[in-house]
Amino acid sequence: MSLEKVFRRIDSDRDEYIQRCQELLRQPSVSGDREDVYRCAKMVRDMIMETGAQAELVPVEGEGNPVVYGKLLSLGAHRTITAYQMYDTQPVGELDKWTSPPFEAKILEGKIVARGAINSKGTLVAELMAIKALREVAGVPVNIVFTFDGEEEIGSWQLRRLLKEHPEKMLKAEAEWCPSTFSTAHRDTRIILGGKGCIDLQLVCDHSRGPIHSSCAPVVENPAWRLVWTLESMRGEDGRITIDGFYDNIKDPEPGDRELLEKLAEAGEEEKMKMQWGVKGFMHSLHGVNLIHAYMFEPTLTINGFQSGYVGPAAYTINPAWAKANMDIRLVPGMDADDVWDKVKAHLKRRGFTDVEVNLNGWKANAHRSPADTRIVAAHRAAIKDLSFNESLIYPMSGGTSPSMYYTAPPLRMVSASSGSDGMPPHFAHAPNEWIGVEEFITTVKMCTAFLWEYGNL
Amino acid sequence: MSLEKVFRRIDSDRDEYIQRCQELLRQPSVSGDREDVYRCAKMVRDMIMETGAQAELVPVEGEGNPVVYGKLLSLGAHRTITAYQMYDTQPVGELDKWTSPPFEAKILEGKIVARGAINSKGTLVAELMAIKALREVAGVPVNIVFTFDGEEEIGSWQLRRLLKEHPEKMLKAEAEWCPSTFSTAHRDTRIILGGKGCIDLQLVCDHSRGPIHSSCAPVVENPAWRLVWTLESMRGEDGRITIDGFYDNIKDPEPGDRELLEKLAEAGEEEKMKMQWGVKGFMHSLHGVNLIHAYMFEPTLTINGFQSGYVGPAAYTINPAWAKANMDIRLVPGMDADDVWDKVKAHLKRRGFTDVEVNLNGWKANAHRSPADTRIVAAHRAAIKDLSFNESLIYPMSGGTSPSMYYTAPPLRMVSASSGSDGMPPHFAHAPNEWIGVEEFITTVKMCTAFLWEYGNL
Repeated sequence: MSLEKVFRRIDSDRDEYIQRCQELLRQPSVSGDREDVYRCAKMVRDMIMETGAQAELVPVEGEGNPVVYGKLLSLGAHRTITAYQMYDTQPVGELDKWTSPPFEAKILEGKIVARGAINSKGTLVAELMAIKALREVAGVPVNIVFTFDGEEEIGSWQLRRLLKEHPEKMLKAEAEWCPSTFSTAHRDTRIILGGKGCIDLQLVCDHSRGPIHSSCAPVVENPAWRLVWTLESMRGEDGRITIDGFYDNIKDPEPGDRELLEKLAEAGEEEKMKMQWGVKGFMHSLHGVNLIHAYMFEPTLTINGFQSGYVGPAAYTINPAWAKANMDIRLVPGMDADDVWDKVKAHLKRRGFTDVEVNLNGWKANAHRSPADTRIVAAHRAAIKDLSFNESLIYPMSGGTSPSMYYTAPPLRMVSASSGSDGMPPHFAHAPNEWIGVEEFITTVKMCTAFLWEYGNL
Repeated sequence: MSLEKVFRRIDSDRDEYIQRCQELLRQPSVSGDREDVYRCAKMVRDMIMETGAQAELVPVEGEGNPVVYGKLLSLGAHRTITAYQMYDTQPVGELDKWTSPPFEAKILEGKIVARGAINSKGTLVAELMAIKALREVAGVPVNIVFTFDGEEEIGSWQLRRLLKEHPEKMLKAEAEWCPSTFSTAHRDTRIILGGKGCIDLQLVCDHSRGPIHSSCAPVVENPAWRLVWTLESMRGEDGRITIDGFYDNIKDPEPGDRELLEKLAEAGEEEKMKMQWGVKGFMHSLHGVNLIHAYMFEPTLTINGFQSGYVGPAAYTINPAWAKANMDIRLVPGMDADDVWDKVKAHLKRRGFTDVEVNLNGWKANAHRSPADTRIVAAHRAAIKDLSFNESLIYPMSGGTSPSMYYTAPPLRMVSASSGSDGMPPHFAHAPNEWIGVEEFITTVKMCTAFLWEYGNL
């Protein structure tokens, strides 16, 4: 079987692959550092071309970082997929908390330590090395369109534009492919079929004056109180969201989802959630299948932060000048982000909070959901079997939001399913000492070759 | 009339008095700078002794700054008053915003510019120079107990202890005397008969974990929401405070107060309030007598600030770890601070906000109120007439809180009334370029002599 030969090639070329990974990690690409980002984009373009593909930087419209776009047409391949990866990263944060400098990509105890190692330049290189190895040994049995994002950390605006305005550039791709890494130690994996939509918003109540001595309180309105009442009008003490029509149009889970949730419950998902978030229990005594169901299928309205006036240790008796709250709304399938956005604005107006402004602060995007019986799911499962990992648990939805939604929504309507070990153990994405394991990286290269092999040959 | 002679002495010695004022202002006494504060306390003690009084620094118990205590017993004086002043100041803030360094006490365009000039070392020196001038020319017709506070800006803890534990040190003082400054340009004055009580508190909802990715929102409690609901449970959208029993025991205004409020309304108090606070109008369409009545006689629950999570310009989708709010409660006569404090705690418990902690953050003190027909009011009015200022407007209450409450409450039960031009025009207390006018300082010296003269001879 040719796949074994490809694995042997990967084992013999492993040092080269690891060096290529370190090379890309040594090129900083923090989203806001334009020159670095362009240098990194060109390296990525060249690395795509080494797989035999055509590649280019899509010119930027307005502000932004380029999408690295490419296409690999393989002789005899009948199917096409679109590969998503990101090459931008978060800032490095506090330098003195890094054991090894964030752009040295030093190998320490089997781990490559660098900003972007796990999120997600390490995976990006693994994917490209997989294609290269496959091509050199056995041929790539699937056509691949590359859409590598330079703005994942800041909103993916250029990618959204490309996908919306140039669907023809996706050729006839039927699925979006975005693997994660595979832990060699852990050997458990997840396949995730969907993700929630998200609206990021900010409420501002600014009374356009300075802070006033709080003796004025009986007669001058207080923006902090106004914002408290606004927030309370949107979600009651029982947790129910009270924006008119908020829960309309929500679709029921797909047939078969209940069974998937039961499997997750049996596999100890509840304990994993506790560990991951550092909590002892959950709201409303939720547990078991109901807990997982709520996590995946309930829309939410979350306060990410609020601020007004002074909260230090001493009394500072003022009536503040303004109050702000940042919030996110997570949307489940069936809800329309534009419609929910209109409902939020209508609610504020109807409830008389005309002194509270609402602004979009990030995403305004719908949930996405692909069926469980797709070729991409089958290919992920087969690849996982090829590498003797434990059988994947299937997650109908994730609680988070991902760029997959841009591929699965009109005009593209692709299917999607992501697969990986999901950050087990924690790899410090966004934090100091971010890392990817050397063996993990090589295993991910193999998992990517297996996936492409299975996708083309299933 | 001997008062004229005293005024002439003040005019001839004015340069010396101004220098003494500059001298005290040149000695920094920011409340937290212990060595500076002690140096200043000793200067104040010596300045008191120059009036012929005995004076000492009251030893500090625990943490704190000393009270400068003194007594001046005058031959033939039948009445005793207690003088309150403060000698500590706020920090200087942003140095580069000062036109003249804050401890140079430079005279610029007729103004002495220094931290503490108006709040309140300028007045303190004016008071002492008045006693000195009076003593040198005509004798002081009243016994004076000095209680000069080194902690006004940080809670007056040592003063409270002295008054509570050693009421006998106040001798037989019947009134607390705390004049303000008198604007030579403005010539309007206020006499204020009372002040609200205050409770400074902090609510904390800390879920003892880090911030979590907001995908957890359907199942993990959010402390920011908990605090919003807690706050909303305490005060409704109509502004009414909904803590059980909060409005119990409130005393009606005194007979005659309505008439005082009508006079204030006629004198344009509404416009003054708009100017002072930089607002165009007031809540609930309040105006005229009703506006002033609400300002003086309504208790309040004010959010001074709240904070939780992230409120920056980008989306940062977290479920925050904790939320805090600082608040003040202003109490009107009849309300008991200890009782209201208990009611706040009982409210949180009864409403199930057991994850919200409440801490005292400053004052917990009652309102104070003295009648309008006291000797101290008569002496203030007579002094104002002696200096040909416009007839004083009488304010039954202030919306703010002052240390006068410690003198008027048991065990002392003194009466109190403060008088002055009340910061017209703004003197930048607590801000850069704080100042006291040179003529204003001299006029304040005269007003203090006139007050003491009238108090002893009425």
